[in-house]
Amino acid sequence: MPFSLSKASLPVFEIALNALSAVLDKAQAHATAKKFDVSVLLNSRLAPDMFALTRQVQIACDLAKNGSARLAGVEPPRYEDKETTTAELKARIAKTLAYLKTVDRKQIDASADRQLRFPLGPVNKGEMKGDDYLNHFLLPNFYFHLTAAYAILRHCGLDIGKRDYLGAIPMKMT
Amino acid sequence: MPFSLSKASLPVFEIALNALSAVLDKAQAHATAKKFDVSVLLNSRLAPDMFALTRQVQIACDLAKNGSARLAGVEPPRYEDKETTTAELKARIAKTLAYLKTVDRKQIDASADRQLRFPLGPVNKGEMKGDDYLNHFLLPNFYFHLTAAYAILRHCGLDIGKRDYLGAIPMKMT
Repeated sequence: MPFSLSKASLPVFEIALNALSAVLDKAQAHATAKKFDVSVLLNSRLAPDMFALTRQVQIACDLAKNGSARLAGVEPPRYEDKETTTAELKARIAKTLAYLKTVDRKQIDASADRQLRFPLGPVNKGEMKGDDYLNHFLLPNFYFHLTAAYAILRHCGLDIGKRDYLGAIPMKMT
Repeated sequence: MPFSLSKASLPVFEIALNALSAVLDKAQAHATAKKFDVSVLLNSRLAPDMFALTRQVQIACDLAKNGSARLAGVEPPRYEDKETTTAELKARIAKTLAYLKTVDRKQIDASADRQLRFPLGPVNKGEMKGDDYLNHFLLPNFYFHLTAAYAILRHCGLDIGKRDYLGAIPMKMT
């Protein structure tokens, strides 16, 4: 099977978001074991002007959802940002994963040379070719928020490693 | 031009590493302005068992260099890990960028279905198909260390934003 935009996006988001969901379970278990409210973790951030964990998870989900939709040339559904528990954040991830399954791979693959226009904040729009959008905007931004979520938890003492971040990747270890 | 493994790797590393080099300039300027030794930043980390900034930069460089070489089916050069200043780290980035220019794009593109074998720590080996290696190992790991480097500096109060992280991406803003 040739390399394609859909292959470089949909399964990437799927594996990474499933990994993030499992990391949230570990965060919940850690808070329960240490007898503190998990919302302390959900509201933690690495700098005063960086987003807290909850928002990092929401943005990672939205990048996967909106990015895949934009590549496919369809309008993404909008999710409200009202999660306050790990269960709710895991439900948002699950909803995002379910949405990704509905996106047409062929439409994504056809977008390499199509000019995409997408919101950049409340006012501006960005414009990029489909393949550039995936390589230079969508993936770097997705991994930024995924890594930030992971790093917040490491910073707070959660015992997770690179495998928790990578998730169930198709790798054979020998 | 069809989507290809070389397009999803070489220019991605190039833009991101150039961005990282510019971020190191800002780190140096910040330390100079605040009259503290920049090695404080270079030795900062987000958790006691995470790597400090210097090592994050070295690993990001090595992932770009070794990953591109492995995709192309050639042996990557080895760089010693002895950088202690921003100038030395920037030189390592420059050396990595120069190496990336020598990697054969066609050899990378031909690796999608080739089984790659690569070191995982000092003992183990990982095995993945070329396209899976890029999508599920190389890019997530590269962005992990790039984001960690950026997040360490944000955590230490450096005034940088998402554009510093993304770098000179081919985006038109309207």
